[in-house]
Amino acid sequence: VLDETHRADLRSWVASANTPTTDFPIQNLPLGVFRGGGSETPRAGAAIGDQVVVLEALVRLGLVEGAARDAALLCAGGTLNALMAAGPDARRALRGGLVDLLRADTAVGARARAASAHILVDARNVEMLVPASVGDYTDFYASIHHATNVGSMFRPDNPLLPNYKYVPIGYHGRASSIVASGSHVVRPSGQSKNDADAEPTFGPSRRLDYELEVGAFIGSGNRLGHSIPLADAEERMFGLCLVNDWSARDLQSWEYQPLGPFLAKNFATTVSPWVVTMDALAPFRAPAFTRANGDPRPLAYLASPSNESAGGIDIQLEVWIRSERMRRESVRAVRLSRVRFTEMYWTLAQLVTHHASNGCNLTAGDLIASGTVSGPTRDSRGCLLELAWRGTEPVTLPTGEQRRFLEDGDEVIFRGFCEREGFARIGFGECRGTVVGPGDTTAITS
Amino acid sequence: VLDETHRADLRSWVASANTPTTDFPIQNLPLGVFRGGGSETPRAGAAIGDQVVVLEALVRLGLVEGAARDAALLCAGGTLNALMAAGPDARRALRGGLVDLLRADTAVGARARAASAHILVDARNVEMLVPASVGDYTDFYASIHHATNVGSMFRPDNPLLPNYKYVPIGYHGRASSIVASGSHVVRPSGQSKNDADAEPTFGPSRRLDYELEVGAFIGSGNRLGHSIPLADAEERMFGLCLVNDWSARDLQSWEYQPLGPFLAKNFATTVSPWVVTMDALAPFRAPAFTRANGDPRPLAYLASPSNESAGGIDIQLEVWIRSERMRRESVRAVRLSRVRFTEMYWTLAQLVTHHASNGCNLTAGDLIASGTVSGPTRDSRGCLLELAWRGTEPVTLPTGEQRRFLEDGDEVIFRGFCEREGFARIGFGECRGTVVGPGDTTAITS
Repeated sequence: VLDETHRADLRSWVASANTPTTDFPIQNLPLGVFRGGGSETPRAGAAIGDQVVVLEALVRLGLVEGAARDAALLCAGGTLNALMAAGPDARRALRGGLVDLLRADTAVGARARAASAHILVDARNVEMLVPASVGDYTDFYASIHHATNVGSMFRPDNPLLPNYKYVPIGYHGRASSIVASGSHVVRPSGQSKNDADAEPTFGPSRRLDYELEVGAFIGSGNRLGHSIPLADAEERMFGLCLVNDWSARDLQSWEYQPLGPFLAKNFATTVSPWVVTMDALAPFRAPAFTRANGDPRPLAYLASPSNESAGGIDIQLEVWIRSERMRRESVRAVRLSRVRFTEMYWTLAQLVTHHASNGCNLTAGDLIASGTVSGPTRDSRGCLLELAWRGTEPVTLPTGEQRRFLEDGDEVIFRGFCEREGFARIGFGECRGTVVGPGDTTAITS
Repeated sequence: VLDETHRADLRSWVASANTPTTDFPIQNLPLGVFRGGGSETPRAGAAIGDQVVVLEALVRLGLVEGAARDAALLCAGGTLNALMAAGPDARRALRGGLVDLLRADTAVGARARAASAHILVDARNVEMLVPASVGDYTDFYASIHHATNVGSMFRPDNPLLPNYKYVPIGYHGRASSIVASGSHVVRPSGQSKNDADAEPTFGPSRRLDYELEVGAFIGSGNRLGHSIPLADAEERMFGLCLVNDWSARDLQSWEYQPLGPFLAKNFATTVSPWVVTMDALAPFRAPAFTRANGDPRPLAYLASPSNESAGGIDIQLEVWIRSERMRRESVRAVRLSRVRFTEMYWTLAQLVTHHASNGCNLTAGDLIASGTVSGPTRDSRGCLLELAWRGTEPVTLPTGEQRRFLEDGDEVIFRGFCEREGFARIGFGECRGTVVGPGDTTAITS
């Protein structure tokens, strides 16, 4: 639902929020958890321009009241879980309160501006943390382009399995190894086996990859044994982030049968730290994927007219890379691909409803990732496995270096944003991670 | 290591702990969390005979001191996580303190006996809870008999996949739906598809199954990016429980490719409430599985002489069932199968080391389940899929009822115990759950 908070002409007294290129205008106000800026205790905040609004300071100084104050108080524990659990009304009340006090043209805004030294910290001076305590992390496989590309490498005659167009395929990932943007990722070791060899060997992965994904944080969940009808699924999502589901392809191809990926995935998953609320994304809703002629209709529990007309979200996603040599030679990061999130075969609401359709209980703070977002063209492929086509079409960097898979020192940067005529640009910030060598465990920040 | 606490001739002043058939003699002292017995707040306790020793009462009355007292204080939060995280020394100190105060022949034992009304509650009067907050739940597939049986149903020519004897196959399960013994299990709904049908349908599972497993709770874990050498893996395990990894076989066979089981498993996992510590199990250590001639040796990171000689644990496991009609007709539960845990191809230590071999961080309270425990004979098969051989060899109950898969009203009971000449019997208690119909969500106790 669009309301006053989505008006494109809103201006903030925080000047950096009014530049057209910012990810964080007053219409966005994504929520996150940070350390620093005067306190080593994790605190919750909202991004505005190049600043962070400290929620506990707003409460302390009486700059929020009523339901907005109650919602801000829910973040006192240093995670967003309690706010997520409180449901969409609490989240919207906080959004309304924040917009009011950050506006350039309100009385409370004038008071907030006068107190700005006490409520704002410079985003450059804080360390962003994983915004929620993630109880369970689920990864889906919702891009038909990705599933078809990967399937065709391993099963040329039968790229897409018979269940794909009926079942939103997903599996459980590892919650403990979810790390915040900026954390280094240690190259994992594991078993792999070449077709030519009789036996597998154990050693550092030689086929390390990124996966460009979008993640949804669950807000109010469901009780065990109860499901979530598709009509309710949108309200159960709190907000979205970018996810890099790092993958070791050589480990994966040897281990994944018959129970799916395990050590190939669970060594690290990076999330962007700012959770863009479903409210901020309201202007960018789009139709669900247009199924091809002959594709089956979704089963009844996964079908609704409103999901079909507006279940999608038009997020533009980008993958950038910067190698160690590029950093050394002061060469800027280069974009590897870009893709729209509307390319996904299943909507996020369908993923949520499917997940709970057997009575599985979803809990506030659970992270549900989309699976690799790939489009139909080469430059819209969301992982190196696809982009370099299993190593057969290497990518060339500006330095002349070639990439089949990731090398130590490579920094991978995801960006995401929504743009639509008549609305402010809503950005996700960045999801960054640098690969370090297998012994290099000193640099880990998790 | 065997010490004074393992002596078979120890006697407790709690009379029920001295009967030869009890699961909980003074040599066992498994730990758990309960509600009731005078307080609705979850509290930690140890099982002794038919009683529960309340840890906070021991602290309050000064019946534990030093490291044992410190360890008991770690359980004040109503989960065992902090004690688990503190490592084996804390656990052993608590064990030592508990043995002293429960012995019939010590001074502190006499004091404890005098205070028994304040430190014991009758186990029948408490509700046992899940003993730890499980951050991540991992399920393995470590029985070669189970893997071969299931594989031969789906791939008669090629029952065991080429990776099986090299990789301890595992996947991530769902932590949120872990429930304590006694919780009802709602029959899940989901997609399934018969070979004869063109399209799948959505509805209640018709192939609901149990899976007999052993679970290990992680104690002190490892940091992200660091591994756990096999020599250290035993010390990272806190203790064991019984696990029923309920499975919907029809959902599983339709959804599981290519990313593994998901909704077929995550609707419920039942754990027995008493965690039997690795210390209590010390007398029952056994050689690892004897690999067949021609089987490969484990890769170096999964091999050690001590694991080979004593990595196994000789637990006897049993599956019992009681249908609704059996209850109505007062027919006792009947045993479906029994199997020894020494039948597992991989030891628990190998599972832990493999899990962390890529740097995946394990955390105190994580649950690592073995996978279905099946032996080589029909009466040692650990799930109905195997026991009734995909429905082709139905099991007949004493009432004449037949079972291909579980019916509503069926109660499944797992039991486990260790017996060895010269040592007290160490039991696990029970892991129980009753299947209820798809709409019957009122009875859920989670």
